[in-house]
Amino acid sequence: MIRSLKISKNQRVSELVEHLADTAFNARRLGEAARIYSEMIENNAFIFFTLAGAMIPAGMREIIDGILRNGFANVLVTTGANITHEIAEALGCRHKKGSESADDVDLSRKNINRIYDVFIENDAFERIEQFVSEIFQNIEGEFASYEILWEIGKRLKKSFLRTAYDREIPIFCPTLHDSILGLHLYIYGRRAIYNPIKDIGRIVDLCFREGKTGVVIVGGGVPKNFTLQAMLLADGFDYAIQITTDSPQWGGLSGATLSEAKSWCKLKENAKTVTVYCDATIALPLIYAYVLDKR
Amino acid sequence: MIRSLKISKNQRVSELVEHLADTAFNARRLGEAARIYSEMIENNAFIFFTLAGAMIPAGMREIIDGILRNGFANVLVTTGANITHEIAEALGCRHKKGSESADDVDLSRKNINRIYDVFIENDAFERIEQFVSEIFQNIEGEFASYEILWEIGKRLKKSFLRTAYDREIPIFCPTLHDSILGLHLYIYGRRAIYNPIKDIGRIVDLCFREGKTGVVIVGGGVPKNFTLQAMLLADGFDYAIQITTDSPQWGGLSGATLSEAKSWCKLKENAKTVTVYCDATIALPLIYAYVLDKR
Amino acid sequence: MIRSLKISKNQRVSELVEHLADTAFNARRLGEAARIYSEMIENNAFIFFTLAGAMIPAGMREIIDGILRNGFANVLVTTGANITHEIAEALGCRHKKGSESADDVDLSRKNINRIYDVFIENDAFERIEQFVSEIFQNIEGEFASYEILWEIGKRLKKSFLRTAYDREIPIFCPTLHDSILGLHLYIYGRRAIYNPIKDIGRIVDLCFREGKTGVVIVGGGVPKNFTLQAMLLADGFDYAIQITTDSPQWGGLSGATLSEAKSWCKLKENAKTVTVYCDATIALPLIYAYVLDKR
Amino acid sequence: MIRSLKISKNQRVSELVEHLADTAFNARRLGEAARIYSEMIENNAFIFFTLAGAMIPAGMREIIDGILRNGFANVLVTTGANITHEIAEALGCRHKKGSESADDVDLSRKNINRIYDVFIENDAFERIEQFVSEIFQNIEGEFASYEILWEIGKRLKKSFLRTAYDREIPIFCPTLHDSILGLHLYIYGRRAIYNPIKDIGRIVDLCFREGKTGVVIVGGGVPKNFTLQAMLLADGFDYAIQITTDSPQWGGLSGATLSEAKSWCKLKENAKTVTVYCDATIALPLIYAYVLDKR
Repeated sequence: MIRSLKISKNQRVSELVEHLADTAFNARRLGEAARIYSEMIENNAFIFFTLAGAMIPAGMREIIDGILRNGFANVLVTTGANITHEIAEALGCRHKKGSESADDVDLSRKNINRIYDVFIENDAFERIEQFVSEIFQNIEGEFASYEILWEIGKRLKKSFLRTAYDREIPIFCPTLHDSILGLHLYIYGRRAIYNPIKDIGRIVDLCFREGKTGVVIVGGGVPKNFTLQAMLLADGFDYAIQITTDSPQWGGLSGATLSEAKSWCKLKENAKTVTVYCDATIALPLIYAYVLDKR
Repeated sequence: MIRSLKISKNQRVSELVEHLADTAFNARRLGEAARIYSEMIENNAFIFFTLAGAMIPAGMREIIDGILRNGFANVLVTTGANITHEIAEALGCRHKKGSESADDVDLSRKNINRIYDVFIENDAFERIEQFVSEIFQNIEGEFASYEILWEIGKRLKKSFLRTAYDREIPIFCPTLHDSILGLHLYIYGRRAIYNPIKDIGRIVDLCFREGKTGVVIVGGGVPKNFTLQAMLLADGFDYAIQITTDSPQWGGLSGATLSEAKSWCKLKENAKTVTVYCDATIALPLIYAYVLDKR
Repeated sequence: MIRSLKISKNQRVSELVEHLADTAFNARRLGEAARIYSEMIENNAFIFFTLAGAMIPAGMREIIDGILRNGFANVLVTTGANITHEIAEALGCRHKKGSESADDVDLSRKNINRIYDVFIENDAFERIEQFVSEIFQNIEGEFASYEILWEIGKRLKKSFLRTAYDREIPIFCPTLHDSILGLHLYIYGRRAIYNPIKDIGRIVDLCFREGKTGVVIVGGGVPKNFTLQAMLLADGFDYAIQITTDSPQWGGLSGATLSEAKSWCKLKENAKTVTVYCDATIALPLIYAYVLDKR
Repeated sequence: MIRSLKISKNQRVSELVEHLADTAFNARRLGEAARIYSEMIENNAFIFFTLAGAMIPAGMREIIDGILRNGFANVLVTTGANITHEIAEALGCRHKKGSESADDVDLSRKNINRIYDVFIENDAFERIEQFVSEIFQNIEGEFASYEILWEIGKRLKKSFLRTAYDREIPIFCPTLHDSILGLHLYIYGRRAIYNPIKDIGRIVDLCFREGKTGVVIVGGGVPKNFTLQAMLLADGFDYAIQITTDSPQWGGLSGATLSEAKSWCKLKENAKTVTVYCDATIALPLIYAYVLDKR
């Protein structure tokens, strides 16, 4: 039965999310995703968390940190862009509230870069350059993304990169080179070789761990595919939830259903799955608040 | 500045929504929509609430009732489908949790009708038919939708239709005929004439009221256009918020920006506006919880 | 087998569309829609064509006229807005190429109204008002939308409204009142009563015709629902194609799959159906060019 | 002025596309994109073509080959998935027409993998493995993606990879490792090191060429960002067209406007740009047919 949604004064987020599972459309999907995530944690599943989209510029960095700190993820797979912007924030550079209808030529003349309704000044990238150039100049030989991200993390305070370093949580960044950091690596990392195949080796090993495995997919993209393909060599995930604004009918991976992943054996036949079609800046905080209360 | 989102245990919905306004993308839009709605209420604006999409089947009926009961809307404009399904629920017929991947031919053979992941049995429509046939057979002459909806409301308990009747809140349904109710009117209402132009007369009068006016648009469609066009003859709304899953680039009204409505003078030049691109089953409960706490 | 798409110099549209049916995603859907439409015509199905979205402002009026003129539709169901803008064009008022990023307050001061990237001046609506006020002032008693649209059509040249009048093709406009025309009816039609239930009677009768029936759905909305619900009382359509930019996962009617309509018995169990997820300004011309060549 | 679209029998694609530029919404955008692409070619711009999404499985491989063969692109930037599926086709393995509503567990048991409505059997991946394992086992030391893709191309017939090799057109694949090929590199390429930073060096050099530069973006993703970021170090593109099904309001890169790229100086201030919101399986063939006729 659909239960008509009741909302009272001082409603808690987790109570609301619990109730959403008994409504319909994406509210139901969101409620179910929260329940499945909670079940993953409760059952001690080994959880891969994939993060695409400009979630760090959008103000979600403390949620990511909370997820790592609270043990709601054992592995993080994200984009070069999110890492770049996290470093900016950790170094004290701030993203600003802007407007998506600003004059972009005008912004460019003021050295302001736009990400939809977020502004960031060029200064931030100079600060990042200064910070990472020292690191990149001093590394020699081959490295995987998770190794360099721990190197970066140990030099930062108040960042999920630091939390990951402290707790030895691997952060994979298969598009490290597809970001400002990639340009800095090109300029300063002349003695180093970034070898993304080494990351494959490590993430595949993690897929072979004993016990249940789960994946939390925020926004699709390379982090989604890189994580799911690693499972091709192993048994398939037991749990999978996905938050996306893409749609299945365009035929792309970011909007592909989790059912489709079963045809590839990336998920187990009986894996519990749900996709929430929603901007992750709305859905992720709600789901996080739920698992925080349920723990 | 973007403020990194912090979530603590037992987080209240209204606190979360407040904070979302300082993030980005649709989380920010949602936070801003909640603030504008709250400001409308605080400033005693006369509020038109438009509701499209299958929100009643999706379990949102008590929120709509709460909005009317708490004075968060002075007028409701909705679709024939939402009215039909509200009558079903008020008569005790229930919508069921179904699956969007069910076999539709199989469902049809079991007399089950599907609305995405919601099921409703044919019985419900028979109950509605029985209920409204008596009403429709007994009306004579011309009527507007808001008049017949009060007639219906006074015969129901526990329904926003009853709340509207009790409080003399007009409910306009410019697509009354575009629903099962329309078929029932066709079959049973032979002595009655539904005159939607009479609704125009009434809603236009309401647009000329003194004081500030606001509009809360859920889902676009005819309810959005019918309400905005009534304002063409008056001064334009002072406030407007919109929740939609449609996008501007398709050129349709449901995804049109609120700025576009300014070119038509449907909104005042300096009207406060924001659009939230999100499934209303998620966004509306969050915004409602916020205005409930802020009152 | 997917056939790799080959394109040669001076490629004809119909050849391209034919080949698209052997590719994937929405190209395949488009090719299949064209084939099904062509089959409807070949098999002398009685065809209902539903048109929502601002297709007339977007320059599609001669395609609609061609569809009626060539017998590719036996009934048209559209919105008040499309009728309003068709009258404007038929009276010689032109829609202009504008920009979706224009300053809307500035436009409003110049008496320019915006529909995404289309501009239309207020003058056009004054011309329409002058034209229809004479018609509306002279009608008395009840009328259905298809009757008044023939009255309008017979006073126009070069318009699909005229073509419909000449050939006695009914045009249903269940949202006649949800448009500028509705406001004009309110102001000038004081002796007339627009009775949309009369339209239901007529469209339901047409659903009971012998032989195969088909529906071509452009853009969803009320035209889609009004047509499908008329079939509830009859046997269900034999063919259905749909062009939409909406998606199923939002739970609304405009994005609902045609399979869903089978659960309601609006389509026959074995009805041939396909949905094309594409802006109709692109998909409709391609499909029209195909059926024109295949005839 | 919007010109009402006229379609005659045996309409050529290029004539239709030409006319679309004088309509509205995405039809206009498509027409404008075709014109800008044609202007790029006419003005001898150096053209970067970026290709994301499952375009090769969808049957677009001969169009990509035609683009390279006809000089409509000087550089191709694509995904590991498109390369993988191109190798499959070039080796004679075929993608099949499937259904998006197939039972995925059932497919997995039959060794069939699904990409929306396209099926491909596991055999294909075994054939690829056999083919690339020999190549990967025999390379030593560091290589860039464009180097290994030439190596692959020279061993194939009838493939855009072969065309690229024959004409020395660089194909960058910044997500080579994010694909089945990446897994094969992991398994067989033990003496080789894939160094994506080397690709950055090469693509940045190409951005510094004299003369005008243009970019044709199909589907966003890493190919879009990797190409645009390379321009950060140079002057900005003179021309840019984009085909995407994503929307700006989600805040992600794939849906970001080309105007946003100006704030980052990835495009010149006065760059000619247009985005077409459409499934690329529909828009790309139309645009390709246009430039083919205009040459």
